[in-house]
Amino acid sequence: MTYTLVLLRHGESEWNAKNLFTGWVDVPLSEKGTAEAKRGGVLLQEAGVTPDVLHTSLLRRAIMTANLALDAADRHWIPVKRSWRLNERHYGDLQGKDKKQVRDQYGDEQFMLWRRSYDVPPPDIELGSEFSQDADPRYAGEPIPRAEALKQVLDRALPYWDGEIVPDLQAGKTVMVAAHGNSLRAIVKHLDGVDDATIAGLNIPTGIPLVYELDEETLQPTNPGGTYLDPEAAKEAIAAVANQGK
Amino acid sequence: MTYTLVLLRHGESEWNAKNLFTGWVDVPLSEKGTAEAKRGGVLLQEAGVTPDVLHTSLLRRAIMTANLALDAADRHWIPVKRSWRLNERHYGDLQGKDKKQVRDQYGDEQFMLWRRSYDVPPPDIELGSEFSQDADPRYAGEPIPRAEALKQVLDRALPYWDGEIVPDLQAGKTVMVAAHGNSLRAIVKHLDGVDDATIAGLNIPTGIPLVYELDEETLQPTNPGGTYLDPEAAKEAIAAVANQGK
Repeated sequence: MTYTLVLLRHGESEWNAKNLFTGWVDVPLSEKGTAEAKRGGVLLQEAGVTPDVLHTSLLRRAIMTANLALDAADRHWIPVKRSWRLNERHYGDLQGKDKKQVRDQYGDEQFMLWRRSYDVPPPDIELGSEFSQDADPRYAGEPIPRAEALKQVLDRALPYWDGEIVPDLQAGKTVMVAAHGNSLRAIVKHLDGVDDATIAGLNIPTGIPLVYELDEETLQPTNPGGTYLDPEAAKEAIAAVANQGK
Repeated sequence: MTYTLVLLRHGESEWNAKNLFTGWVDVPLSEKGTAEAKRGGVLLQEAGVTPDVLHTSLLRRAIMTANLALDAADRHWIPVKRSWRLNERHYGDLQGKDKKQVRDQYGDEQFMLWRRSYDVPPPDIELGSEFSQDADPRYAGEPIPRAEALKQVLDRALPYWDGEIVPDLQAGKTVMVAAHGNSLRAIVKHLDGVDDATIAGLNIPTGIPLVYELDEETLQPTNPGGTYLDPEAAKEAIAAVANQGK
């Protein structure tokens, strides 16, 4: 027997569209992102995948994506758990900054290191600054970061994976995780045993449910890499991201 | 010290607009209902009322109302619990029927008895019929009704009130309940000790948060009847419903 896990990356946000570093800044979905989320729900329903429980980050672009997708799939009524441990990577001092300006200011090498290295975080965000979350009530009392690389995302996501998601899977529930590019890459790295170098080149498209079947004993994927519910669209989206870097 | 409870009745649904008995049929909000929900969230934010936990029914008109209101109030990230015990009254065999047609067919007296008596339910819904929920996965294994008067709504809501909502209140959380005309009337009847005859004339307007402060010892309201966040609009809405009956 296997357990079923559905990963869903949020649709385009208003800041994705504006090419700004977002991280923990809580921006809404764009109109395109709203449509992506609904389409994700249609894909779930067409595939007969029926989430029993939802886990989300504390950011509205993931929460809205889940709400819209589950409503489209007629699963809006399932229970919901949320945690900052599923949040996007904290981009530190880069949050709120234009990606092109950062690249021009710091140069290609530093820019790519911050964007893609496994364990080199950007500079810490200044406490109390415009795009800092230190006074945000949703994080009160939590050991939140001031900047993260992917490694730190994995380190803070794993306790939630082990403590909250795995028990739901082991109870036989189909679990949906609605989250972000980097928190989902962290989970995929963990599940598929992707090494630190290879994970840099791994991208998860927005709005296309990625379904894993996990062995009930080992929790290892019986379908390594998972299965996208719209494989053609996923392939095109992944190719488009790869071409951006060229 | 008091505990804070926020009751929010969903905005207009597509079937409210069409004058059909809805009950447990899972219809979406109308465009007007969507606007009402967002406005409810603005009222929460303007009043500085900050829900810490959300309880909803399993019906999308209440779920969507809560999602839209909490997003507008910047509280979309709070934890969520859901139960069929907060659902609208089950209208039995009347579900899906036009209210005017039912009135013409059965006469004013029977119609008003079904709509407003405290303990006379409409006829049971036929299992397997178009507007029955007996095969709906969200109710699997639950002792769901086939028709209810307000008394039966109170009977099935109370265990959820005592078992799930009261503990959240006693933990000091501001609790928001997003539900329906009759499940909220049942809670209000319980809180304010409204007698069986008087409750028939009590209406809760849609989309306007109703805030109760509950004594920490007795859980009795220190503001009997609660406080609407837009008292003028609530008064007008209540008067409009009263005039419909004339």
